Amino acid sequence: MKLNNTYEKTKCLKGRRCLLLGGGGFIGTNLCRQLVAEGAEVTVISPHVIAEQALLGATWVRATLEDLDLIEPLIRQDDYIFHMVSTTVPASSNENVVADITSNILPTLRLLDTLVQKQIARMVFLSSGGTIYGRNAPIPTPENAANEPLCSYGIHKLTIEKYLALYRYLHEIDAVALRVANPFGPYQIGLAQGVVAAIIRKAISNQPITIWGDGRIVRDYIYVSDLTQAIVRAALIDDPEAPRVYNVGSGVGRSIREILETVQAIHGKALDIVNTEERAVDLAVSILDISQARVHLGWIPQTPWETAITKTYDWVMTNPSM
Amino acid sequence: MKLNNTYEKTKCLKGRRCLLLGGGGFIGTNLCRQLVAEGAEVTVISPHVIAEQALLGATWVRATLEDLDLIEPLIRQDDYIFHMVSTTVPASSNENVVADITSNILPTLRLLDTLVQKQIARMVFLSSGGTIYGRNAPIPTPENAANEPLCSYGIHKLTIEKYLALYRYLHEIDAVALRVANPFGPYQIGLAQGVVAAIIRKAISNQPITIWGDGRIVRDYIYVSDLTQAIVRAALIDDPEAPRVYNVGSGVGRSIREILETVQAIHGKALDIVNTEERAVDLAVSILDISQARVHLGWIPQTPWETAITKTYDWVMTNPSM
Repeated sequence: MKLNNTYEKTKCLKGRRCLLLGGGGFIGTNLCRQLVAEGAEVTVISPHVIAEQALLGATWVRATLEDLDLIEPLIRQDDYIFHMVSTTVPASSNENVVADITSNILPTLRLLDTLVQKQIARMVFLSSGGTIYGRNAPIPTPENAANEPLCSYGIHKLTIEKYLALYRYLHEIDAVALRVANPFGPYQIGLAQGVVAAIIRKAISNQPITIWGDGRIVRDYIYVSDLTQAIVRAALIDDPEAPRVYNVGSGVGRSIREILETVQAIHGKALDIVNTEERAVDLAVSILDISQARVHLGWIPQTPWETAITKTYDWVMTNPSM
Repeated sequence: MKLNNTYEKTKCLKGRRCLLLGGGGFIGTNLCRQLVAEGAEVTVISPHVIAEQALLGATWVRATLEDLDLIEPLIRQDDYIFHMVSTTVPASSNENVVADITSNILPTLRLLDTLVQKQIARMVFLSSGGTIYGRNAPIPTPENAANEPLCSYGIHKLTIEKYLALYRYLHEIDAVALRVANPFGPYQIGLAQGVVAAIIRKAISNQPITIWGDGRIVRDYIYVSDLTQAIVRAALIDDPEAPRVYNVGSGVGRSIREILETVQAIHGKALDIVNTEERAVDLAVSILDISQARVHLGWIPQTPWETAITKTYDWVMTNPSM
């Protein structure tokens, strides 16, 4: 088995037009920076951006996925489309399931119809590795495990995946869905802030860190630059027989305790940890099986855990106001 | 293993209020007749009905699933809800995928929120055994086969199934989804008309019967009264550990040729069959594995193939205008 562990410059998006839908958030900002560095022509389409200065070299169009009249003229036949839009987050998506559908699935379907008209070949869609499986999934969880989402967010991601497969079957749109684990790294701020960023931020500002229960909950954390590498690989997949759905994670489970230990080691002094009552969570353990991405995308995560946490720590240190 | 092959009168819906949403069609009319005969208090909620006289003993409220203001006052806590609404059919559902979602998924979600408020315990939802799996499914196909729908109809059914599971997890709504194969029998008229009814009707009226290709396409045909028995069994399931998704078919595959042969034998003279060019179909063979329904619902189809075709033939003969 040939692994392309070093990123081949010949297999990058240099000179290609890339449209990042919902690209103003945490993952989009990182992807934009990578693509601009590679020499791609990047347009970020997003109602707001978390760090405008980080998008230097790209064009930002202020629009939501529902503003198809604004988006449609920007799309040309050979573009690569990166769909990173979600108007909801897992935790709160059950509060208004109708809105979850109308603001995520429906605009995506209208976009797909536009892509059919424009004869767009390739799209990468960010799905959810953490919510799309369910309580009975094997650990680590392969892509063919049963889909039993416990939140509307996971259902809307699954439904969009099914429409992508349908549009590939009916039309020529070749979309790849990436079921992303828990990403962390620079620019994880605002609503998308994950537990790693939150812990680092509290540590640096010497604030108490509140942990539910004993911190045993295990998740699959992936460093964002490893994720953006996978996204580009997915855009460039050329084997028509290869799967179009991939788990993208580290393939390794880490408890909250382990995050705390690593951050404390980097921080160099004891963290102020406050344990509160156990909170009911849907899944105690979530770890993705990433062997399909290794085989078919030639991708594996490159960044060691301590390095990734250190880079994130350093970024928060040098960007205290973000 | 105990099989309840004879229908237990103690396990019926006598005296219970039953709301048949979309109950004016083929399956709904048959279910209504069974429930009325059992002594249930039946309300059919449907924008139109295929045979009003067949609903004798039931109340018909002219409303769609979107008329929640009309439906909501009709729902009481102990009601059994039968959701048989689909505004689309598999063949044409890909022509307007947005409408497929807005007219099926969204009204169902609003209904579910109403059922939560009303503390409704039990709902039976008619899903699709023929469109929810896909080309790579094992034959016969068990419920845990991969879901790879090739039409929007199958995706909307799958998405609703996932929301039913979510609402069971979050709330007390205990919905059972039945993935129904190709039903046939009395009252299969109008848009819902299937191949069995079409062949019988042509035979009786001595019209040529057009068959695509050589009639090798195999489907799982289930007689409608066997199906309505399964629906009632699903409504009365009381094991909290039993699955909430069941295939409901005959478990036997029949080609178009076999239907023609059986109808010809009953008809007593040669059918006028016109073979036209092969039409591209999504699936050459579809047969459901019905062992889960046997084990957990104590249900198996009761009506032999020839008997079912004969009953359907006789019904068409005595109802020529329908």
